[in-house]
Amino acid sequence: MSLAPGATIGILGGGQLGRMLSVAASRLGYRSHVYEPGDAPAADVAHAHTRAGYEDMAALRAFAGSVDVVTFEFENVPANALDLIGALAPIRPGVEALAVSQDRLTEKTFLEGLGLGVAPFRDIPDLAALRAALDALGTPAILKTRRLGYDGKGQVRIDGPAAARDAFAEMAGADAILEGFVAFEREVSVIAARGPSGEVVCFDPGENVHAGGILRTTTVPAILSASLRTDAALLAGRILNALDYVGVMGVELFVTGNGLVVNEIAPRVHNSGHWTQLGCAVDQFEQHIRAVAGLPLGDGARHADVVMENLIGDDMDRLPDHLAAPGRQVHLYGKAETRAGRKMGHVNRLVGR
Amino acid sequence: MSLAPGATIGILGGGQLGRMLSVAASRLGYRSHVYEPGDAPAADVAHAHTRAGYEDMAALRAFAGSVDVVTFEFENVPANALDLIGALAPIRPGVEALAVSQDRLTEKTFLEGLGLGVAPFRDIPDLAALRAALDALGTPAILKTRRLGYDGKGQVRIDGPAAARDAFAEMAGADAILEGFVAFEREVSVIAARGPSGEVVCFDPGENVHAGGILRTTTVPAILSASLRTDAALLAGRILNALDYVGVMGVELFVTGNGLVVNEIAPRVHNSGHWTQLGCAVDQFEQHIRAVAGLPLGDGARHADVVMENLIGDDMDRLPDHLAAPGRQVHLYGKAETRAGRKMGHVNRLVGR
Repeated sequence: MSLAPGATIGILGGGQLGRMLSVAASRLGYRSHVYEPGDAPAADVAHAHTRAGYEDMAALRAFAGSVDVVTFEFENVPANALDLIGALAPIRPGVEALAVSQDRLTEKTFLEGLGLGVAPFRDIPDLAALRAALDALGTPAILKTRRLGYDGKGQVRIDGPAAARDAFAEMAGADAILEGFVAFEREVSVIAARGPSGEVVCFDPGENVHAGGILRTTTVPAILSASLRTDAALLAGRILNALDYVGVMGVELFVTGNGLVVNEIAPRVHNSGHWTQLGCAVDQFEQHIRAVAGLPLGDGARHADVVMENLIGDDMDRLPDHLAAPGRQVHLYGKAETRAGRKMGHVNRLVGR
Repeated sequence: MSLAPGATIGILGGGQLGRMLSVAASRLGYRSHVYEPGDAPAADVAHAHTRAGYEDMAALRAFAGSVDVVTFEFENVPANALDLIGALAPIRPGVEALAVSQDRLTEKTFLEGLGLGVAPFRDIPDLAALRAALDALGTPAILKTRRLGYDGKGQVRIDGPAAARDAFAEMAGADAILEGFVAFEREVSVIAARGPSGEVVCFDPGENVHAGGILRTTTVPAILSASLRTDAALLAGRILNALDYVGVMGVELFVTGNGLVVNEIAPRVHNSGHWTQLGCAVDQFEQHIRAVAGLPLGDGARHADVVMENLIGDDMDRLPDHLAAPGRQVHLYGKAETRAGRKMGHVNRLVGR
């Protein structure tokens, strides 16, 4: 069953991803209801905004009762809130995908269990475990909190055994995981979608450049052999099927001499899929809404080569240039204040024209 | 001076054009405030909605005081309302363009005064004038109300002098104009934009097919010689410059053996420009917001061939096919009820891929 036009889609989280999801929902004739404790750029383009915390059971209940389906723009929705909502409205993608991606240890174990390449990793409950893991995996290695990390936060690089104590202290008591070093040629990502009846569609892989742990650019097409291109789509499909997933997922991959290694998965629309707004008839946001609403998925075909560039912090100083240059599509997120490291918008640029 | 991100754009009218304008405004970091007496599809994607009539001076005053600039999605905004708003906030495009396009007689006279080709026309204050005009212009001819006509409403075709009395009666006392027959090969339109500093940018002409007075499809590129293509852009520029226009205008043209004849102008984004959502980095809605906000205009370049098809009334029965077919971008307007002749949405389809 698909949602009829006029139905309401609940979105947990009111940032830029929720904002662009809400616009996509409107294109398909749906209304959006955004749940966000703080300021919500998404609320400017939503039918309704509940401004309340994730511990506010009455607000969550009213929200869930007012919508036809619930989705989310971020993976760290508290489990209690999900339990309450899930009793009142369908949540797509499911709670299992959230649980897997909320914890790096669970995620890596899950991916390894599917037979996919991942960086070598160890659970790090204490300093002794970290020393043993550094012995086993060598350096450089990266110590990461198991939960709540994003955009390079909650991570510290370890270049030798002597740095173990300080690195462990930086975790501040949080559960952690050590990841061994992966020698990769490039980073790519696949934005994949799966509908309720199990069909999977992938957009073309994009090549990503990060700086300081934050995505700077995505370029399509990525430089990638035909066989790795196929591998990327197949492994994305395997992940989505294993989770009985409904919606769009971002799958970050390392390209190595030994094939593809899965870096991490994000159970939501993904920054590295923003290029689809200019390159595809149905972009990742609409693709996600189509999946969540039970509509047929777009075919993922790309009709233009695109470079997506994030506008982070004082990248906004170059906004006038982006607006004046031909062939560029500027997306601003409506955030009140420009801060260092804050994603303020992005630019999709046509290439080779 | 351009509007800073976070500024609010007031939109008079809350239909599908206002809805897509509001989305475009959000992409540039602006908020929208929609003024619409009735149900407003645009309100689902707007920061605010004032639901009040155009005779409600207090509501108009509050609206104008809450926004940084005012634009509109339809040309029949009552003059009293414009006067009140104009004293409190800039209105773009200006009141002059509205005045010209609100009255077919004024519009035709204006266009003729610019030296542009128009259908022969006569003012029809009474039945005697109609008889004389039919003598002069011959039949077939079309009798139209001077004001408030759109999508073929307020028009009656006259095939011979004997039909004069009945046709005049159909005007029900409204001021009218008789337009002579133009033998045209095809209908095209140019979506043109002009910024506050006078720069003019045109999108590629689209070829339009109407049925029953309502636009059915627009195809780009149109079949048009290079010289007529140039003529189309030049005459659009002449119109915009003469009105000191700021924003997007739709210019409907007949292609005849003697060159281009201007059918009518619409001082707003136009149904025949919806293809730009799929074919251009900056679409007509964003182009209008850019002009109104004083940002640089997009360059109008087209990177894909597109056919736009309106979904009118029970065209909605074919919605599942459109959603399932590759390379199609569906836009629904969020209207509660499907009615015969009502524009419910449109489909942009990639061609030749």
